[in-house]
Amino acid sequence: MGFRTALLAAALVAAASPSLAQGDKDKPKSAQEIIDAAPASAWRELDPANTLYLQLANGRVVIELAPDFAPQHVANIRTLAREGFWDGLSIYRSQDNFVVQFGDPDVGEKNAKSQGSAKTKLPAEFERKAEGLAFDELPDSDGWAAEVGFAKGFPAARDPKTGKAWLAHCYGMIGAGRDVAADSSNGSELYVVTGQSPRQLDRNITLVGRVVKGIELLSVIPRGPEPMGFYDKPEQRTPIQSIRLASEVPAAERTPLQLLKTDSQAFVDAVESRRNRRDEWYKHPAGHIDLCNVSLPARDPTAKDRNTP
Amino acid sequence: MGFRTALLAAALVAAASPSLAQGDKDKPKSAQEIIDAAPASAWRELDPANTLYLQLANGRVVIELAPDFAPQHVANIRTLAREGFWDGLSIYRSQDNFVVQFGDPDVGEKNAKSQGSAKTKLPAEFERKAEGLAFDELPDSDGWAAEVGFAKGFPAARDPKTGKAWLAHCYGMIGAGRDVAADSSNGSELYVVTGQSPRQLDRNITLVGRVVKGIELLSVIPRGPEPMGFYDKPEQRTPIQSIRLASEVPAAERTPLQLLKTDSQAFVDAVESRRNRRDEWYKHPAGHIDLCNVSLPARDPTAKDRNTP
Repeated sequence: MGFRTALLAAALVAAASPSLAQGDKDKPKSAQEIIDAAPASAWRELDPANTLYLQLANGRVVIELAPDFAPQHVANIRTLAREGFWDGLSIYRSQDNFVVQFGDPDVGEKNAKSQGSAKTKLPAEFERKAEGLAFDELPDSDGWAAEVGFAKGFPAARDPKTGKAWLAHCYGMIGAGRDVAADSSNGSELYVVTGQSPRQLDRNITLVGRVVKGIELLSVIPRGPEPMGFYDKPEQRTPIQSIRLASEVPAAERTPLQLLKTDSQAFVDAVESRRNRRDEWYKHPAGHIDLCNVSLPARDPTAKDRNTP
Repeated sequence: MGFRTALLAAALVAAASPSLAQGDKDKPKSAQEIIDAAPASAWRELDPANTLYLQLANGRVVIELAPDFAPQHVANIRTLAREGFWDGLSIYRSQDNFVVQFGDPDVGEKNAKSQGSAKTKLPAEFERKAEGLAFDELPDSDGWAAEVGFAKGFPAARDPKTGKAWLAHCYGMIGAGRDVAADSSNGSELYVVTGQSPRQLDRNITLVGRVVKGIELLSVIPRGPEPMGFYDKPEQRTPIQSIRLASEVPAAERTPLQLLKTDSQAFVDAVESRRNRRDEWYKHPAGHIDLCNVSLPARDPTAKDRNTP
């Protein structure tokens, strides 16, 4: 790789990791340096009971569920995973700059796969009471909601007028497809946001979690040629080998992963370093960051270079 | 495909095309219905002199250049295309939720490809005078800029205080990679936004155009395993067969394409129908749309169903 290419790239990546010469102590720290220096206490472990492994032929996608926002959907998803509902089903839709969707392409038909002991009917879980929910608010304005920030590690929004909070449709968020009726989802058909954040869906559909590792396995799935990204031939679908709760996978086979706590000083500092870029490359710091532009750092605590999962 | 799946999908796609029963005359029109009903005068043709064809093994990506914002970069890109600079080069970087980048992976090295008669040095073209530029402003707030909207068909921003306007880093926008110096790009190394709009790059790098067709060929390119999405092996790169100006391609081989004018009533109405979704599926119209959530309709005027390019 050429020197200038590397520099162009380094520059383009918004100087996430500018190479600071030894002794550059007056230079502001980059977001990556802040994250690398975060104490162990700033990191949290995933709860295996709230973690799903979506296994594809070419790798594992790790999903964190959001029971604090969608308790009934998450309970049903746990049942579906435990009973192997998705095993052998597929990702049957990939729409550019929007979503991939997976589950049973024959749902609602005579040949639909049995959903076992999962509930067929659940209430909509579009929002919840803000009261009692720790909310790490961003100071940045948002066009879609009065307040935005992070709750339980997820991008979220809040309205002091209604006293409600809800999850936000950022990249990697996972929701439960539904019919016209608000209460027509049960968590068997799930979509993952793989494009520009479709925030207009907020409070219109139940979000159940977020991809915390492996999103790049989903985002490159070829787009379906039919309207809304469906495939015209079943063989174009991406087979799902299995979806399992991490708690039902032997400990040795689990994916080691830690997430930076959104109420940690390191997280606050990293976001600020992205809001106002102070490295040489940036000529015009934005003075702003959008909720869905905030990255949620993850790391493999067992890796030698554990900050580059 | 199952009935319910189709419905789930139809619902999820935000009811872009709800199937209205005959006689549903009181129902508000969907964005797609508004676009389908737009008069011929609401559509514009691409100027072949401002159109690039990026030819990959599996298809053609159509790019509209933005000479009103980056005249010198666009002139240089025209020279590079005319002289076949990119032919046989590659897409050498794909970073998830960010960009793909193409050009010469050896740029700046001894074995770099000659750039022929293209200029090696250009001024930065980050912004321009707002005066004299028609600007179709959105009424929606934006965290990154005082005013946002569309100019010459591109997503753009404007600041009445400085009297400047600039292009915005939305999905599909194309920019010129640069080194630390503001004036270190010449248009030979280009990136395309394939993730959540990195608006922090606005006014920090020269944007030169936008992908108007075929972005789904770029967005699925496997992510590179190295930092910033570079590949570790040259054979992982995606070869570029050629990049040509449409004006240098025989008329019969050009891609027929029209774009909806952003100053047309149909465009204004379509955006409003997305800002406040009034179909049955939506329970909570957002009352807002972000600049980078606005889709810029394109159609093949020669197709039977010409509104589904």
